[in-house]
Amino acid sequence: IAARVAALGPSPFAEMTALAQRYGAVNLGQGFPDFGPPAFLQDALLHAAMSSAHQYSPPPGLPTLREAVAEMLAPTLGFVADPEQEVTITVGATEGLAAALLALIEPGDEVVLIEPAYDSYAPQVRMAGGTPRSVSLQRSAAGWDLPLAALQEAGNGRTKAIVLNTPHNPTGKVFSSGELAAVAAFARQWDAYVLSDEVYDRLTFERPHVSIASLPDMRERTVTLGSVGKTFAATGWRIGWAVASPELTAALRGAHTFGPFCAPTPLQAAVAQGLRTAREQGYEDTMRAEYRVKRDLLTAALRAVGFEVLPCDGTFFLLADWSPFAEQAGTHDDREFCRWLVREVGVAAIAPSIFFSAPHRAQGAHLARFVFCKTLSGLEEAAARLDRLR
Amino acid sequence: IAARVAALGPSPFAEMTALAQRYGAVNLGQGFPDFGPPAFLQDALLHAAMSSAHQYSPPPGLPTLREAVAEMLAPTLGFVADPEQEVTITVGATEGLAAALLALIEPGDEVVLIEPAYDSYAPQVRMAGGTPRSVSLQRSAAGWDLPLAALQEAGNGRTKAIVLNTPHNPTGKVFSSGELAAVAAFARQWDAYVLSDEVYDRLTFERPHVSIASLPDMRERTVTLGSVGKTFAATGWRIGWAVASPELTAALRGAHTFGPFCAPTPLQAAVAQGLRTAREQGYEDTMRAEYRVKRDLLTAALRAVGFEVLPCDGTFFLLADWSPFAEQAGTHDDREFCRWLVREVGVAAIAPSIFFSAPHRAQGAHLARFVFCKTLSGLEEAAARLDRLR
Ligand SMILES: CSCCC(=O)C(=O)O
Ligand SMILES: CSCCC(=O)C(=O)O
Repeated sequence: IAARVAALGPSPFAEMTALAQRYGAVNLGQGFPDFGPPAFLQDALLHAAMSSAHQYSPPPGLPTLREAVAEMLAPTLGFVADPEQEVTITVGATEGLAAALLALIEPGDEVVLIEPAYDSYAPQVRMAGGTPRSVSLQRSAAGWDLPLAALQEAGNGRTKAIVLNTPHNPTGKVFSSGELAAVAAFARQWDAYVLSDEVYDRLTFERPHVSIASLPDMRERTVTLGSVGKTFAATGWRIGWAVASPELTAALRGAHTFGPFCAPTPLQAAVAQGLRTAREQGYEDTMRAEYRVKRDLLTAALRAVGFEVLPCDGTFFLLADWSPFAEQAGTHDDREFCRWLVREVGVAAIAPSIFFSAPHRAQGAHLARFVFCKTLSGLEEAAARLDRLR
Repeated sequence: IAARVAALGPSPFAEMTALAQRYGAVNLGQGFPDFGPPAFLQDALLHAAMSSAHQYSPPPGLPTLREAVAEMLAPTLGFVADPEQEVTITVGATEGLAAALLALIEPGDEVVLIEPAYDSYAPQVRMAGGTPRSVSLQRSAAGWDLPLAALQEAGNGRTKAIVLNTPHNPTGKVFSSGELAAVAAFARQWDAYVLSDEVYDRLTFERPHVSIASLPDMRERTVTLGSVGKTFAATGWRIGWAVASPELTAALRGAHTFGPFCAPTPLQAAVAQGLRTAREQGYEDTMRAEYRVKRDLLTAALRAVGFEVLPCDGTFFLLADWSPFAEQAGTHDDREFCRWLVREVGVAAIAPSIFFSAPHRAQGAHLARFVFCKTLSGLEEAAARLDRLR
């Protein structure tokens, strides 16, 4: 077995989902909706199923979908990406990040991760032969801050890329324009790329999403990653995209072609149709409004029983401080707490320690991550179960 | 740009398909059907689209699909693979091979390829840090033979795996039991794995397919790769599988989880249903009978105008010798010939040189690969165009 995979365990999300099933718990752990994609997207899949979209697409993706993605992203990117040379349809943003890393990283290269960092980033950096180097957001009264001095120290001549994620999983933080400028300056200083995971781009509640690629000189040094999974309630469709310079696009298409070859064609065809309908119907605003209600409902339910809930400006994640329940649960370890919660209370949550490397783990102490991408009745059921903690 | 991708060009198949579109040619190049999946599979997708199968599956795949695959493969594998520990659903067999290589290969490891070799194998070996080492099939009166002495010479202490492909693209060869035994002996001698690409397993015309994993001691050292793409006319669905020992399965699931994460769920659900219906309806026999007619039709059409057609015992590919047209086409180079053919005759074919490394390229001289995975009317249209060569 090769070293690059020997240390990998199974997905911690999948593990918690299995536990939730075992205990019949409300699953507020793994980030996927318990409802389906909007009706117009499901209809688009019915059409695709009856169409001729069943064979290979070109490895970069169906041209119509690449065009629709370029159009959709133009307002946040600040430019219309060239569908031919700058847009690649990937098997979810996760595969897009893997392809970008395989395209960029040589053995010995370093990639800066901002913790808490999505669980796939560090293994993906290692699988590409790179070394992750991490800085951690710092918990403050207002939420989480990017420590600029620590960021500065993380760079060096071997820094090839920095992974950014905004809106941010698991904190719900939306990076400020000052922070984005600092990340961009960092990339310019070290001649590095920004791999920008923006899968929650349409899920902001306080101020609109800004792509770092829209900052001066950043179009050339950013890979903007997105997907339909989170914002169209279709995490199983595996349709994502990577927007990058023509040169980098050619390289990441190589890694993509000799990995999955192309994204699933019927789903690409359905999404190409769906993105256009979404715009006509004003889907994004409706979705955002619904998620705001759900965020507020879950926040209130958690607060009512005594959790301290941290601010959430974007994504569908809430971090809650469970210190008041440490004694009852008999633990100060977040993994133990989550196991206790799913078993005894019937609500599954994710332990943030999976998002931290050992040196920074204390930043996540006594926190648990709850998703609110569930139906109102699912959230109400979760609220009723949490109420047992009173 | 990392060295592992710097030398990769775009897919030669996609390039020829683009040329076919440009010239309005009948596309007998890239291996995908011009018809859709069988009605029962399309129906299964309609059901899945209206079901709840829209979110992440477990990274190893939907349990129902893993069970259906284990059942379907049992007759050729000679054992019922454990769906829990030995079967992984991949994004097509191409991603399955990539995951297997990432799971096995350390820098410096060698992987033996049997040429003509599918175009993805060598880049995939290199992307995993390995070194491809090739032996070539030898053209004989009966078709193509595996040269056992050359195979013997290709092994050494660094040999980690050998990639087998039977039924074989592009030759249409079905490896004999003697040849399979030789490959198995080679694997045992060098303590190597066999990565067995069996995507044409149901497409044999003379004798049934045998999986190398069914040979003594080979279950532990084989990764059996397959997919629905070719045999269910659904190359764009990206549903494949990898069957391997529990230990290797755990490792390749790691590479898969941090690549595409999981295969597309609605398509997994549809295939799980579809494989069962296929068995009830005797789909495989019908399909095979149809392909036999098509093989014979295209063979006759090529022979009628003067091509020498090589025997085809499996797959949906025919190799034809175009020596008689070299003068007319003004070339002895197979890529030039295929460009001439698509432009002047309106039929796209693939130049076999893409399946050979430089030292073995002469084996493919004056050959072109034609697919017969087309409707009868498509093949008749191709025949009419080829008739212009008379
Ligand atoms: C790919 S499974 C994890 C889904 C997710 O984004 C999360 O739960 O953080
Ligand atoms: C993945 S594109 C190539 C399809 C194929 O198997 C072939 O044409 O050989």
